[in-house]
Amino acid sequence: MLTVIGIGPGSFAMMTQEAIAALQEAEIVVGYKTYTHLVKPLTGDKQVIKTGMCKEIERCQTAIELAQAGHKVALISSGDAGIYGMAGLVLELVTSQQLDIEVRLVAGITASIAAASLLGAPLMHDFCHISLSDLLTPWPVIEKRIIAAASADFVICFYNPRSRGREGHLARAFELMREFTNPQTPVGVVKAAGRKKEQKWLTTFGEMDFEPVDMTSLVIVGNKTTFVRDGLMITPRGYEL
Amino acid sequence: MLTVIGIGPGSFAMMTQEAIAALQEAEIVVGYKTYTHLVKPLTGDKQVIKTGMCKEIERCQTAIELAQAGHKVALISSGDAGIYGMAGLVLELVTSQQLDIEVRLVAGITASIAAASLLGAPLMHDFCHISLSDLLTPWPVIEKRIIAAASADFVICFYNPRSRGREGHLARAFELMREFTNPQTPVGVVKAAGRKKEQKWLTTFGEMDFEPVDMTSLVIVGNKTTFVRDGLMITPRGYEL
Repeated sequence: MLTVIGIGPGSFAMMTQEAIAALQEAEIVVGYKTYTHLVKPLTGDKQVIKTGMCKEIERCQTAIELAQAGHKVALISSGDAGIYGMAGLVLELVTSQQLDIEVRLVAGITASIAAASLLGAPLMHDFCHISLSDLLTPWPVIEKRIIAAASADFVICFYNPRSRGREGHLARAFELMREFTNPQTPVGVVKAAGRKKEQKWLTTFGEMDFEPVDMTSLVIVGNKTTFVRDGLMITPRGYEL
Repeated sequence: MLTVIGIGPGSFAMMTQEAIAALQEAEIVVGYKTYTHLVKPLTGDKQVIKTGMCKEIERCQTAIELAQAGHKVALISSGDAGIYGMAGLVLELVTSQQLDIEVRLVAGITASIAAASLLGAPLMHDFCHISLSDLLTPWPVIEKRIIAAASADFVICFYNPRSRGREGHLARAFELMREFTNPQTPVGVVKAAGRKKEQKWLTTFGEMDFEPVDMTSLVIVGNKTTFVRDGLMITPRGYEL
């Protein structure tokens, strides 16, 4: 039995009942080292297998093989495992190899939801998730999505906005949006949501400073109606008040 | 003190630690009657104020006034309160009236994440949320977003896909997408996720039957790479296997 668990952004508070129960029931916990560290208080004496960054296939295979050998395995993923996480890869591997193991998926709070709750209520209207990592997606596909989302006035959540070797991606995304997005549009950034080093700030599309944004950050660009009041980023749902 | 709580789709399992703790700490719980019923095992003897559908402003005002009077109030919203929920309205009301009450937002599992975890892993790549309710949004704005999302090959999650008086909206959305979306594209529907009446099924864009979809349903249309294997809807992240 293999349970793929979205542990949320990192704090115990944002974990679901089901995620906690599944971690407690597991015999072996597999995950990227930062995440196994985050759930340490819940894994106690269990066997924990930590893998490094960019070792996603290896990590999933290890978990699958242990489950095949009869163990109760928990594979952890930050946020929700089904959003840029490990759930898809596990299901691709298990179904393509026609393995007879039971896979259970446990939903989690993804970064955009966590970030939004810390910034105010920026996601009250239609929004998109776009990852700016081109490791697995051709950059032209990403560009097309950025332009489509901005032109149709979606609120946009950028995942993996800026990381080593991809320092220019967020600036390039803003460049593409400039035609559609007013410089006064509020932008919210949350770094390491729910973790010790959590930081958040608000700025505008026109005054955005890309430098402090890193790979643990989530960037939310508002739509035409988004405003900031009392330090809160709010996208109105449309009620007449 | 007013805590706006996303209770998730309906099951205790998908509630966060923070949501449960906040409900337990509250003196008074305010919410739409279906949702107050869902959390009944957690509210015990507390005062519970139930309001009807389409009474959102009234519901928020009631919660705000009770908080102003010094009570610890929990306002509950299904899914995540910040996604088509009560969080934005509360913040709009509190900040526009310059009220001096503390508002805390508690993140929850939104319908798309819950539905995705039940269907497989359809949200592994860039996706959009679009609400098909035109109660608060002009229909042409919604149409523009549907076309933009389909043309840029986003996975699309339709909220409020079909309800009384808006029976044709989902069919119209599919009509608009036809130019961009292959008839073989997998579509997943989850009805009443996490509740007793939960139902789910997979179909294709070309064979979609709109009739069984209702206002408690979440519809996910895949992107060009989404496939179904072993009854699971999977959008590959892009790893070479």
